[in-house]
Amino acid sequence: MTAIEKRTGFLCRAIAPVLVAALCLASVAARADEGMWPYDHVPVKQIGALYGFTPTQAWLDHLRLSSVDLYASASFVSRDGLILTNHHVALGAAQRLSTPEHNYVRDGFVAQGPKQEMPVPGMTIQVLESIEDVTGIVDGSVKPAASPAQAKAARDEKIASIENDCLKKTGQKGHVVALYGGAKYALYRYKEYSDIRLVFIPELQAAFFGGDDDNFTYPRYDLDMAMLRAYENGKPAKVENYLKVNPSGAKDGDLVFVSGHPGRTDRLQTLAMLEYDRDVSMPFGLQRMKDVRALLKTYSAKGPEEARRARTVLYFMENSIKSMEGELRGLNDPELMAKKRSQEDALRLAVEKDLKLLAQYQNAWKDVESAIEWARGHQSDLRYKMDVGMGGRGLLGTALQIVRYSDETSKPDQERLEGFHDSELPDFLRHVQAPAPVYKDLEQVTLAYGLEQMAEGLGPDDPFVKAVLQGQQPGALAKSLLEGTKLDGPAFRKKLLENKGKAVAKCDDPMITLARRMDPVLRETRKAFRDHVEAVEEAALTKVAKAGFAVYGTDTYPDATGTLRLAFGKVAGYPQGTTLVPPFTTFYGIFDRAYGFGNKGDFSVPARTAAHQADIDLKTPLDFVCTADITGGNSGSPVVDREGRLVGLVFDGNAQSHPNTFVYDEYQARCVAVDVRAILEALRKIYGAGNLADEMLESSR
Amino acid sequence: MTAIEKRTGFLCRAIAPVLVAALCLASVAARADEGMWPYDHVPVKQIGALYGFTPTQAWLDHLRLSSVDLYASASFVSRDGLILTNHHVALGAAQRLSTPEHNYVRDGFVAQGPKQEMPVPGMTIQVLESIEDVTGIVDGSVKPAASPAQAKAARDEKIASIENDCLKKTGQKGHVVALYGGAKYALYRYKEYSDIRLVFIPELQAAFFGGDDDNFTYPRYDLDMAMLRAYENGKPAKVENYLKVNPSGAKDGDLVFVSGHPGRTDRLQTLAMLEYDRDVSMPFGLQRMKDVRALLKTYSAKGPEEARRARTVLYFMENSIKSMEGELRGLNDPELMAKKRSQEDALRLAVEKDLKLLAQYQNAWKDVESAIEWARGHQSDLRYKMDVGMGGRGLLGTALQIVRYSDETSKPDQERLEGFHDSELPDFLRHVQAPAPVYKDLEQVTLAYGLEQMAEGLGPDDPFVKAVLQGQQPGALAKSLLEGTKLDGPAFRKKLLENKGKAVAKCDDPMITLARRMDPVLRETRKAFRDHVEAVEEAALTKVAKAGFAVYGTDTYPDATGTLRLAFGKVAGYPQGTTLVPPFTTFYGIFDRAYGFGNKGDFSVPARTAAHQADIDLKTPLDFVCTADITGGNSGSPVVDREGRLVGLVFDGNAQSHPNTFVYDEYQARCVAVDVRAILEALRKIYGAGNLADEMLESSR
Repeated sequence: MTAIEKRTGFLCRAIAPVLVAALCLASVAARADEGMWPYDHVPVKQIGALYGFTPTQAWLDHLRLSSVDLYASASFVSRDGLILTNHHVALGAAQRLSTPEHNYVRDGFVAQGPKQEMPVPGMTIQVLESIEDVTGIVDGSVKPAASPAQAKAARDEKIASIENDCLKKTGQKGHVVALYGGAKYALYRYKEYSDIRLVFIPELQAAFFGGDDDNFTYPRYDLDMAMLRAYENGKPAKVENYLKVNPSGAKDGDLVFVSGHPGRTDRLQTLAMLEYDRDVSMPFGLQRMKDVRALLKTYSAKGPEEARRARTVLYFMENSIKSMEGELRGLNDPELMAKKRSQEDALRLAVEKDLKLLAQYQNAWKDVESAIEWARGHQSDLRYKMDVGMGGRGLLGTALQIVRYSDETSKPDQERLEGFHDSELPDFLRHVQAPAPVYKDLEQVTLAYGLEQMAEGLGPDDPFVKAVLQGQQPGALAKSLLEGTKLDGPAFRKKLLENKGKAVAKCDDPMITLARRMDPVLRETRKAFRDHVEAVEEAALTKVAKAGFAVYGTDTYPDATGTLRLAFGKVAGYPQGTTLVPPFTTFYGIFDRAYGFGNKGDFSVPARTAAHQADIDLKTPLDFVCTADITGGNSGSPVVDREGRLVGLVFDGNAQSHPNTFVYDEYQARCVAVDVRAILEALRKIYGAGNLADEMLESSR
Repeated sequence: MTAIEKRTGFLCRAIAPVLVAALCLASVAARADEGMWPYDHVPVKQIGALYGFTPTQAWLDHLRLSSVDLYASASFVSRDGLILTNHHVALGAAQRLSTPEHNYVRDGFVAQGPKQEMPVPGMTIQVLESIEDVTGIVDGSVKPAASPAQAKAARDEKIASIENDCLKKTGQKGHVVALYGGAKYALYRYKEYSDIRLVFIPELQAAFFGGDDDNFTYPRYDLDMAMLRAYENGKPAKVENYLKVNPSGAKDGDLVFVSGHPGRTDRLQTLAMLEYDRDVSMPFGLQRMKDVRALLKTYSAKGPEEARRARTVLYFMENSIKSMEGELRGLNDPELMAKKRSQEDALRLAVEKDLKLLAQYQNAWKDVESAIEWARGHQSDLRYKMDVGMGGRGLLGTALQIVRYSDETSKPDQERLEGFHDSELPDFLRHVQAPAPVYKDLEQVTLAYGLEQMAEGLGPDDPFVKAVLQGQQPGALAKSLLEGTKLDGPAFRKKLLENKGKAVAKCDDPMITLARRMDPVLRETRKAFRDHVEAVEEAALTKVAKAGFAVYGTDTYPDATGTLRLAFGKVAGYPQGTTLVPPFTTFYGIFDRAYGFGNKGDFSVPARTAAHQADIDLKTPLDFVCTADITGGNSGSPVVDREGRLVGLVFDGNAQSHPNTFVYDEYQARCVAVDVRAILEALRKIYGAGNLADEMLESSR
């Protein structure tokens, strides 16, 4: 993703599908516990030198194949396909399965045996089967004299064909990932499971004790866990690779590993990009999210059913706001920026001193600046004419997807827009057809806001605004669109997708007709953005990365791209203010913090925890922190010890870790995890789900 | 105290006798919960407007007469003279009473009935009986054309005579306090109790859980309490005014009052003074304390008995370092300094605009600058020739006191040095004669350091250094002094004091002979400092204060002077980092924080708390925070509700409150108190001292 686009996304980065790979590289060699390492490039010698333990290939393969990708992170924890992830990762599933009668978000859910395990509509997971370097093939598709835009088009076409071939040849999905700013390309091949069922999710108050206030905070007292199960042929999947449990957990100072899917870091970005983020994109994105948060809060205040409907989206909005505020704090920290500047200066100086490097790479930084200059000059278009408001969610987004699907599938595969290649269509169709509930009154709020913003941002005389509004007020248009559309019906969507072509072109559903009016302009803006910004930045960052390889060597890790990575570190508290923050918290802390606030609201003791207080060993470690290098998307990652046994479950970074997007810091930045001992204790003593604890332990023998 | 002197003191400000009144005034009108108000100037209307409760004169008198001054703060909590204060206030007493066999600091002490209550040698307490404005009398002693130095001498003489008269006429000690930078003078008259016994002190680990790390930190989990009892005629004193207990404590948001003895604030100081503090005095003082801390740690590491001997002084050293670091953080905060600058600019502008004010006050700020200029030019003398090293403590300090006592008492009262007026002698004698233990091996460390610093700071050719060392190395001199002196014997000290005159002049004790060699130079430097700095700053700050009165009115409070003040505020948590800090902590938190750190060292559950865990209601509030304006010296202050009932016991300010020395802040700065419910619960359930809880509650009926 590029500087402009990624900042305005609606979804929490922690669980957002990372559809476009971020193209980056750490510009200095990794030291200490730094790095989110691809599984084919783990610094085993460095780990051995630091911790006296050198992972073998078999050790790495086992952990990789036990790791689960579900647009966030998870792991298999029994031979019967039991999956451990976070509550907030499974939250969307719980929300989709909930009804006004059964509020699984508020009350939690425990399946009493396999028959009660609930299929989650549209949910798939995947396991990374193999990694193959395809740099030569991808780069070979680019003609010597190609412009950045032509090069990008050629590469994208080649990538699509590699992915299609993978599916045809192996029956498994492949995804070509651009690493190190495009200096390398790798084909990641996945085994997919498409029958996923909800097994266990605690009530929100236990998983999210302390609410938005405590989010991204440590010390923390959350049981942010959930369990799913992969099924095959209607039965629990038998998996060969899964994590055994270490019921004793980890100790202070212990070496631990985190295997998961960090979504995005910007460590390779040039200073100019970071400054643009800091001064333009992030403040805009933040303001937009705060506006929507305010609207959602007003909506929620109408009644308990409204509150239930908006709960999940409000949760992710708060989450994203707090996360982006943390990143912005980092970019506004003179020390952090000085560090970035000195890194960039050092690399540029090294390039200038070497005539060969100079010829190849010297333009990279200037090219980025010119791309940003272009973006500055097209700010309004990029904000309001490139995507449907709020990141393309909602029924208008669905309408646009259907219109595009209809158009794109009539073209040869290699000419299609990203997302519509043959290999991508099964996912696309499942997602659009899934029978997720639609709340039109809630959509009214966000759709009207998106249309208002567009009208205000572009001005009433803009032809696009005129074409969209056709003389109506944004609120009134949203109302008539939502009243008139049938897109909330899965059967209607399915029919349109199946018939496509004329059926879509002639469809008089008001959302579809609006999408048809909008699409040409959106496509045009997107293409301009792609040619003038994305392609230029991509080419420039590739140069920066290659310059880095030439100067510092290749023993480094690429920026996060949402693909599987291994991080390592130690369990460790840290100094804060005038005192120390402990490495662990315990169940005692729930009670202390709750009663300290008068045991109410987000700070009340979860009802089941209170009811079973006498049964719980309160000194059981609940959450802990370690120095592993993580970011959003790592939610749900297993934490394992040197024997590869599960000791924790990542669910957060502390507030000090947000600037890790740009620079890793070991002083205070920490990865926050649920302790495996809390997981076992809670299943047994609080939730009457000892069978799940037993299943994990039995599989561990 | 002045900018130079106060920063180099050895003792923790929280319990240091405030011998010289700080002369200050808040330069803008107090708002919200700001202010440490003298009891004759409590803003009852403002409190009424803010909280709907207007204290009556009787309400104020009762609280004043229930408040106890013991160079820190305390209160009567039963009709039989039971006194409640902090563990760290009574710590010195416990240390003095301890022996290698009975370590009351480590193990605590609970008197099983009155017979076991242990007299504390040399300890007195006092209760503020009356306040009388003597501004006219004091200022009347100054001749119209007097220089600042002459004016100061005249006022000091008059003040001594007022204090002597008070003792003669009433039989009670009086102390004239300079308020508002010397713009006002008040005679504070005290009833004294000189038979004070130790009743209860918990073990250090319970009172100081979290150790130096958690000191000045909140959330906090300390039972920082102790109980003493005043005796008269060998029996528990019957007191008319004491605090009744509110066993239900206070709630979040409740109005509360704090009655105690804040030691020093510098809110009236000019910017030039603050900058001098920031750039010169505080960094020097801090370095000196850190040096001594390192030496004491090395000493402590020698063995358990050494650790025991150094424990208290090391505690106060850590305390002072952390406190001064917090103040320095404040002075290095551009926002705080900008606030001070804008306040000063506003006042100076108002003075410049009014011809009358201009004539009277315009020189104030320049005069301060010239005093500071003088101090800068005499830095070495002021650091090494004004006082015996480390604030005059230790046997060399005692020797100097005896030499001065001998000289001064031969003069007429009004010509004596401060501290040696007739009215001050009983305290002086009791203090010097008290049979406190002396550890020569420990003194070797600090005395050698003080002598080394002097030699290094002044250089080997300085005549004073030559006179002191007489060719010896500092360490060797310290050794021979300590080996040869008999001053560690109370009887020897008593004899010298009783005989004085020739006995002291001819005494060949090596400490006494060194003190005789040093004293003339120390006196000379002190006089120069007094005339060129103290007197000038005092006169200037008086002008600044009077300018403030003229511009903003007199509805304001003076800077803290170690005298009894009333503060008010509300029980309130606060935002910190990305979350909220709770208003209360509970006993649960001890266990959470202890187990979070592995239950060891400073973070281990206190043994008796662990042993009685099953008996304790763990949700009992342990500590809480409120917005009352406090500072060091408030330790041990009672917190009372609007009915005047005890709800808490102040023992700390959080780290964010340290810059309160210069500017009050309500956002995060908090007063930290032990909750009365924890006091009652601990006495009953942990310490088998239910009789003390009963005594408080019975007296409350």
